Amino acid sequence: MGAPVKPIEWLDSSVRIIDQRCLPGRECHLVLKDAGEVAGAIVGMALRGAPLIGIAAAMGVAVESRRWVSASWEDFVSRMEDAVEILRSTRPTASNLFWALERMKRVLAGFPGESVPRACSDALVGEALKIYEEDLETGREMGRIGGDLIKDGFALLTHCNAGGLATSGYGTALAPLYVARERGIRFRVYADETRPLLQGARLTAWELDKAGIDVTVICDSASHLLLSKGMVDLVFVGADRVTVGGDFANKIGTLGVARSAAAAGVPFYVVAPTSTIDFALDRGEDIPIEEREASEITTISGTRVTPPDVPAYNPAFDVTPGELVTAFITEKGLVGRPFRENLSRQGPGAAQRR
Amino acid sequence: MGAPVKPIEWLDSSVRIIDQRCLPGRECHLVLKDAGEVAGAIVGMALRGAPLIGIAAAMGVAVESRRWVSASWEDFVSRMEDAVEILRSTRPTASNLFWALERMKRVLAGFPGESVPRACSDALVGEALKIYEEDLETGREMGRIGGDLIKDGFALLTHCNAGGLATSGYGTALAPLYVARERGIRFRVYADETRPLLQGARLTAWELDKAGIDVTVICDSASHLLLSKGMVDLVFVGADRVTVGGDFANKIGTLGVARSAAAAGVPFYVVAPTSTIDFALDRGEDIPIEEREASEITTISGTRVTPPDVPAYNPAFDVTPGELVTAFITEKGLVGRPFRENLSRQGPGAAQRR
Repeated sequence: MGAPVKPIEWLDSSVRIIDQRCLPGRECHLVLKDAGEVAGAIVGMALRGAPLIGIAAAMGVAVESRRWVSASWEDFVSRMEDAVEILRSTRPTASNLFWALERMKRVLAGFPGESVPRACSDALVGEALKIYEEDLETGREMGRIGGDLIKDGFALLTHCNAGGLATSGYGTALAPLYVARERGIRFRVYADETRPLLQGARLTAWELDKAGIDVTVICDSASHLLLSKGMVDLVFVGADRVTVGGDFANKIGTLGVARSAAAAGVPFYVVAPTSTIDFALDRGEDIPIEEREASEITTISGTRVTPPDVPAYNPAFDVTPGELVTAFITEKGLVGRPFRENLSRQGPGAAQRR
Repeated sequence: MGAPVKPIEWLDSSVRIIDQRCLPGRECHLVLKDAGEVAGAIVGMALRGAPLIGIAAAMGVAVESRRWVSASWEDFVSRMEDAVEILRSTRPTASNLFWALERMKRVLAGFPGESVPRACSDALVGEALKIYEEDLETGREMGRIGGDLIKDGFALLTHCNAGGLATSGYGTALAPLYVARERGIRFRVYADETRPLLQGARLTAWELDKAGIDVTVICDSASHLLLSKGMVDLVFVGADRVTVGGDFANKIGTLGVARSAAAAGVPFYVVAPTSTIDFALDRGEDIPIEEREASEITTISGTRVTPPDVPAYNPAFDVTPGELVTAFITEKGLVGRPFRENLSRQGPGAAQRR
């Protein structure tokens, strides 16, 4: 079955993306024909979400390669190296970006001097599609595992947008919802609006509604009332980084939701691929918290909402201690307590380390 | 010392108010010359906050009385009764409104037939000023008691606007801050922006900044991070209704702040006059929760932020259990545990009941 949303599509001589800046008012698309246009879309935030940025960068190299299949091998290689550099400079902190571009560079480096540009281009396209497919399969697998937890009549709560729009199409926290929907389960979702950038109100609401899932937007601060009144059966959130100890960083506000879920006895699941686990970090207090521009809080839709001289403090993430987490859902399975032992086993080198 | 802000002023033949709809961009005033104009200001939300609405309504009757001092007694009484009716119909749920108008009616009823309108008008003006002064003194007294808790270098957190702008000038939760400031204590305040109507970003930030208090606005969902990281020493919030058992209703989001404060061991004080205590209610679950228009969430500054077909759920208040409260601060003193016993003693008829 196809992905619930298609934030990016490979059209061979171009890449078609949903311009997320139009959402939720309109669904508009951009057709990008070279690496420069893809880079512009990333810089301009037409697409966002670390996994999606990685996929877009890889496709950016691939689509550029299509333009130079008739060039000399030297010229082709030089154009590909330029494309990688242009794409690398778009977002300085998105780790998936560098990881995806490294994979593309390895493919290029695998071809000896005086190779045929067409053959290399086909390999680059293949690698970009593999990155895309792997992400889709990871989302689908997390969806299958998390989807088993969703029963008919359930009400779910989620925070921010860990959805299809941040990935190839299934997302992380929203993947179980899409799979449950495919299975015919009936449930409803409360989406925290997620101040300051309103990813919940704008993006989560849009993609769930589009997939035919019953979604209601609430203010972030209303989640505590809903949880305490028994109006929520399950919470699913994503993660930006998970420590081996089970603490995790996610969009600001996740900590409060987790605390209220724990107080109300509502199961709280973190849905994140194993690539999100930082095996070098044990405790959440070691995760650096990005502080963003005050203007994200002081100005809404172009209107200043705070007094001119009053500052705002805008931490973008918070860290939730593992003790508030019921279980993690990765593409490898449901990871319960004790987290230190069980999350360590999720690592690729776990067998050797033991 | 004068009130930190003057949301309303009696000018004898008129009432001057801060038009809160202009805040925080500009400070503009309205001069209201009769009961109809005062009623219009209440309906149009130029002023808000239950105590302030009560004061404005009383002053509305008083200012109207000034216009008819030369009329016949019958005409005067009829005009006053009309004024009360016009003002009563402005906001259906603000209990202070009805309470203040009842006091004005009792003054009017105390004058026998064929009295001198000027004498009655003076009595009505006196009663309106008494209601104003009582509110000011209540705020000042809560401020003195709560102000003792604020030490040099403290960081405080508050939610919504339980400030001067909701009352005669000192407020409830903000009164201790104003008194501490008068005493020369140096501290800083984090103001939750308070979605959906942004009373924290707009009003609390404005009035604290105007009073020279160091205030920083944060997203509601960031309060959990600040509390968990030890960045807050004290929390002060107001209350819309307090049960004798110690549970209380306040602006949506208060419950989450209280839970995170308790988890972090940060003292959490509810500042509310004894008039807020509902001696007939024991448990918070019996407090009805007002649900407001979804459009307060779906549209910000005239811009639709959610998809057109997606609903929003907008409960205006939540109920915080007394177990999360460190103490209540009323104009009569600091009320600690056990709350049921100690809050009961705050009632006017408590002595007789025992």
